[in-house]
Amino acid sequence: MANIRSAGDEPSDDPRWRAFEVRRVRAGRSSTRRDAVSVEEPLEIRVLGKPIAVVMRTPGDDLDLAAGFVVTEGIVSPDDLSVVAPCVGADGRAVENVVNAALVEGASLDVERFRRNLYASSSCGVCGKATLDAIEVAAPAVKSDLQISADVLLRMPAGAREAQSVFETTGGLHAAALFSAAGERRELREDVGRHNAVDKVIGARVRRGAWPLDQDVLFVSGRAGFEILQKARVAGIPVVASVGAPSSLAIECAQSGAMTLVGFLRDGGFNVYCGGERVRQ
Amino acid sequence: MANIRSAGDEPSDDPRWRAFEVRRVRAGRSSTRRDAVSVEEPLEIRVLGKPIAVVMRTPGDDLDLAAGFVVTEGIVSPDDLSVVAPCVGADGRAVENVVNAALVEGASLDVERFRRNLYASSSCGVCGKATLDAIEVAAPAVKSDLQISADVLLRMPAGAREAQSVFETTGGLHAAALFSAAGERRELREDVGRHNAVDKVIGARVRRGAWPLDQDVLFVSGRAGFEILQKARVAGIPVVASVGAPSSLAIECAQSGAMTLVGFLRDGGFNVYCGGERVRQ
Repeated sequence: MANIRSAGDEPSDDPRWRAFEVRRVRAGRSSTRRDAVSVEEPLEIRVLGKPIAVVMRTPGDDLDLAAGFVVTEGIVSPDDLSVVAPCVGADGRAVENVVNAALVEGASLDVERFRRNLYASSSCGVCGKATLDAIEVAAPAVKSDLQISADVLLRMPAGAREAQSVFETTGGLHAAALFSAAGERRELREDVGRHNAVDKVIGARVRRGAWPLDQDVLFVSGRAGFEILQKARVAGIPVVASVGAPSSLAIECAQSGAMTLVGFLRDGGFNVYCGGERVRQ
Repeated sequence: MANIRSAGDEPSDDPRWRAFEVRRVRAGRSSTRRDAVSVEEPLEIRVLGKPIAVVMRTPGDDLDLAAGFVVTEGIVSPDDLSVVAPCVGADGRAVENVVNAALVEGASLDVERFRRNLYASSSCGVCGKATLDAIEVAAPAVKSDLQISADVLLRMPAGAREAQSVFETTGGLHAAALFSAAGERRELREDVGRHNAVDKVIGARVRRGAWPLDQDVLFVSGRAGFEILQKARVAGIPVVASVGAPSSLAIECAQSGAMTLVGFLRDGGFNVYCGGERVRQ
């Protein structure tokens, strides 16, 4: 469980988390606090100065991350790896969120070979793009007059679970579901990738001609990362509710998209991170 | 929890799970059973016949997945989307694991624009590549005489948790750790992306000159998907232990790589999916 921090705490010195104002709803009562949220930010990884990937990560140990990534993805052999360091701009200062892997003398790399034809990833939605500029899918803010009650939200985990047939069998799948504001379950899908489950429920609605999904609520069984919020925003979904924690970038995407983000929806309570005007108690 | 199935069960008619033989260890006793495992397989998504992405998914609702993916990633507007259908080979039969999205007459798409310069994704490691052929990183089978006792395995979750400082604060991070066969914790990192946490611990070892990691055991706090196993295999790690469930492709990667895969490591027990000769009781 999250360690709830009281209002007025000093900002975190740890780049791995930040405090956000949260409305906590427990046993029908609501209070506002500051709560610690895991930071999610893009990191651009370069080899010999050429961008090869952007990964969404929690800041910290970025040089280890870049070294591990280029080695475990088969791009650079450990013997060829020299210094991994932050990129430095024309002003001599480190460029934020960009790191470069240098190679030992004599080692060469066909970087183009590794910048294959790719677009994106359903399992992450964001990372895999090769430069920081490629991350955001243009999507307007969501327009929807949908209102949802706390009672309907609190019933969603059980309403989803009763349709999760494969999870019951294997113990190993994420679920995503679309509900109406009245709590009717419209679609539910399970998948090893949580983003696939989201794509499947949205795709099912799209293929039936429902668009935009401005009267749908998206429920996810795990955590809410940026990519889940971005997919919902592109689909025009006004409310996203997750059983697990949101990331900092998920909250920021929901805020800029005029969306409602609910997290820690379990054990008879939930947190509202933004867009609380759509949640009735 | 997984619904344990007894040996001799009929194969599943549901493409979303398959039965694997598993050695279950509980309270110091071991038994062999067949257990249901979530299926993970690559799906190649094409638009107008051109490959744009491969996603690792659980089979089923593939047309919904493709429709949702191309829409939520901003590649195709719902108004332009026509029929989504399996690709058909020269013999007139559907090509397995390849689907195509057609567009309405008059709609055009600059597919190349979306096949940007990418390599892969740390958050998934696999998906994001544009064709099925691009998925596997060449890595030999792991050679290691490492042996680990059940007691050391059972202590890993607590040994990892005591170093998970950010999880305690935010409730929202995955952890990966490297342990010695004696149970000494060598590295631990937390990240919003489980694959980033794996890259960080491996990268930390690589940057200190440790390679290959044939005397290391990788512990992950969540589920074990294919990409986790592939990263471990490239690093030469002989044993992967996860708190959550493995996928079918993770088991197959571990089998072909001569690795040991342990899952459901919690509540005083665990399952061994392959490579059991490295686990002493």
